[in-house]
Amino acid sequence: MRPIYLDNNATTRVDPEVVQAMLPFFTDHFGNPSSMHGFGASVGTAVKEARRQVQVLTGAEYDHEIVFTSGGTESDNAAILSALEVMPHRTEIVTSAVEHPAVLTLCAHLEKTRGVKVHRIPVDRQGRLDLDAYRAALTPHVAIVSIMWANNETGTIFPVVELAELAKEVGALFHTDAVQAAGKLPMDLKSTAIDMLSLSGHKLHGPKGIGALYVRRGVRFRSLIKGGHQERDRRAGTENTPGIVGFGKAAELALNFMDDENTRVKALRDRLEKGLLQRIPNVFVTGDTLERLPNTANITFAYIEGEGMLLLLNREGIACSSGSACSSGSLEPSHVLRAMNIPYTAARGAIRFSFSRDNGKEDVDRVLEVMPGIVEKLRALSPFGAGGEVPKNCDPV
Amino acid sequence: MRPIYLDNNATTRVDPEVVQAMLPFFTDHFGNPSSMHGFGASVGTAVKEARRQVQVLTGAEYDHEIVFTSGGTESDNAAILSALEVMPHRTEIVTSAVEHPAVLTLCAHLEKTRGVKVHRIPVDRQGRLDLDAYRAALTPHVAIVSIMWANNETGTIFPVVELAELAKEVGALFHTDAVQAAGKLPMDLKSTAIDMLSLSGHKLHGPKGIGALYVRRGVRFRSLIKGGHQERDRRAGTENTPGIVGFGKAAELALNFMDDENTRVKALRDRLEKGLLQRIPNVFVTGDTLERLPNTANITFAYIEGEGMLLLLNREGIACSSGSACSSGSLEPSHVLRAMNIPYTAARGAIRFSFSRDNGKEDVDRVLEVMPGIVEKLRALSPFGAGGEVPKNCDPV
Ligand SMILES: Cc1ncc(COP(=O)(O)O)c(C=O)c1O
Ligand SMILES: Cc1ncc(COP(=O)(O)O)c(C=O)c1O
Repeated sequence: MRPIYLDNNATTRVDPEVVQAMLPFFTDHFGNPSSMHGFGASVGTAVKEARRQVQVLTGAEYDHEIVFTSGGTESDNAAILSALEVMPHRTEIVTSAVEHPAVLTLCAHLEKTRGVKVHRIPVDRQGRLDLDAYRAALTPHVAIVSIMWANNETGTIFPVVELAELAKEVGALFHTDAVQAAGKLPMDLKSTAIDMLSLSGHKLHGPKGIGALYVRRGVRFRSLIKGGHQERDRRAGTENTPGIVGFGKAAELALNFMDDENTRVKALRDRLEKGLLQRIPNVFVTGDTLERLPNTANITFAYIEGEGMLLLLNREGIACSSGSACSSGSLEPSHVLRAMNIPYTAARGAIRFSFSRDNGKEDVDRVLEVMPGIVEKLRALSPFGAGGEVPKNCDPV
Repeated sequence: MRPIYLDNNATTRVDPEVVQAMLPFFTDHFGNPSSMHGFGASVGTAVKEARRQVQVLTGAEYDHEIVFTSGGTESDNAAILSALEVMPHRTEIVTSAVEHPAVLTLCAHLEKTRGVKVHRIPVDRQGRLDLDAYRAALTPHVAIVSIMWANNETGTIFPVVELAELAKEVGALFHTDAVQAAGKLPMDLKSTAIDMLSLSGHKLHGPKGIGALYVRRGVRFRSLIKGGHQERDRRAGTENTPGIVGFGKAAELALNFMDDENTRVKALRDRLEKGLLQRIPNVFVTGDTLERLPNTANITFAYIEGEGMLLLLNREGIACSSGSACSSGSLEPSHVLRAMNIPYTAARGAIRFSFSRDNGKEDVDRVLEVMPGIVEKLRALSPFGAGGEVPKNCDPV
């Protein structure tokens, strides 16, 4: 049976067109784009084209606002650390309680080692940001706000365009982790007040090990990785040219597929949710169903543990995830579901199905076919008892 | 005419076997190795194998001493910054005046922003480290010594095994940038006192955008890039699995080709040097001709400028470099040649030819054929005057 991949928020299959675009840069145009000779020159042109492709995806005004990095994590780290360096008199960071570890782990570290004050804005049961708390945290002490465009676990979308305007009022820089939003939601950075934005190639059918940080023209910036003068002194190290070219191609394709994502792919996701809710009792959709990525379903199955479901789904050749990939291996409910105040026993039964353009209707039907049996089996064994109460606070969304 | 690539210290052609090894990890085994399902598992195995291949190349005792990074620059930055973090009571760094910008730019930044004291050990006219100055700088104030194994511009090799022993006596960590040495010189880290060592994939026919930092077991380490738990908490961010697999394969091949490098490739380099010195007057070999990488020739042509030669060589389809790629575009002599006290007018006429296993005798013969004409032409136009004196202090090595 064909394996079914529904873990596209963890990583995506590289588009074969992307691989084709990359290939010449390994063995033919392998030069260092910083070199003066002919081997470097043709590569420099390709890097320029890729930068333009990412510019177009994000709606940035200038191509040189795109800085290539090694991935989303590095971009997030670079944005936050730069802000603290260029605004030494501001010592606070505003972020959300549901950011990716690339932001939250760094913030915790800065809090511990540099005495930075971190405001982690809470979310409600649907994962929506507490706007009053956000406004209250915004003062002239804040160097940077870092709030994600869309959450990797629930798909919940934050109103970053408005949040950026508010941050601007107190003179703080505004950074958004758009790793999950890019290619799924339209972006027009030039018409916003967003100062910095993180992207990761492998989340949009590009290669792993490449990402980008958008840095608005005029925003002061200090590089995280120091050395040579690559990327206009904003990211040292020999350019990963095949990765950059592949990322550029992936950005171009993502734009072409954005309609598909928001119609066909979204319909697959909705079909799965509806089907599961119809077929299995005590199943709930987690997150904001109104403001949500088109490809993501985070679903809670009461009375059982996500890991057990993953295991049995895996035996059927179906890949999905419980919480983010980074926290897998641990059996604790993810920090995102805890921040949403989903009760412990329910949060442990959360599964994330994340779709992409590679999926089809047959994938959904297969999950709908096997899932009722899996849940029944696990509930029969569950220490929480299959006949127990629906966990308090865990109403269907 | 077939283009001739003699700029292998800037970057190398990816070995077609490496590309073959990488390919399945873009579109087939594209999973996130941190994922719990089957798409992740097979990838985890491949990453483990790559780690072992790099372990073997470096002679590390344990495979988990290898941490994959995005390249040599990141590895250098990570090593130095970690040392300062784990030894907060030590505030000095010992390095050399001829390190790569990945070390020197960071050190200058730390000096300026954190009050770290940096000792830049000088070198002599042949590029050899001043051992007395080195010993004098070693005190219990030193957190880390970072001295390269081999210099990228001249190929000069430093006695890092001995230098590490001396650093150990004062309790300092010892890091070496082995980006140029790896694959060219035998390494047996387990029998040394070296604590950390940087590698870069693209310098040994592996892909760009991947590198490694060796961190000896037991050495305390703080990650530079913070986020998820990848690489045992030592380097956050989704693993660049095709890059890692390619780097592993490249490490394996480099070990197989090390003999070729030290016999056939070395003979090509020597043939070029001898040929140029015979055919053209006032030509000098720069660097330590005894302790030198087998593939590197740094040659000074008195009275003319490197950039002019590069241009005319490029017209003949021959790629090489003046100084490091990072400083190209600038007409100042490189910091390495300045540290060696090569007089300004001579240093400006320095050209680096760097070979690899991809080169053959015909490449050397072609350079020997065109170079006398190029030099003659440029000297006739030279503002320094073709009939002038040999610059003072610029004796042939
Ligand atoms: C929202 C978000 N931010 C950042 C990252 C980190 O990206 P990467 O793993 O490519 O460094 C991820 C994915 O892992 C993510 O989902
Ligand atoms: C000695 C040395 N160290 C570090 C580097 C940096 O490696 P990378 O450009 O892969 O980051 C280079 C090459 O550029 C080098 O020659």
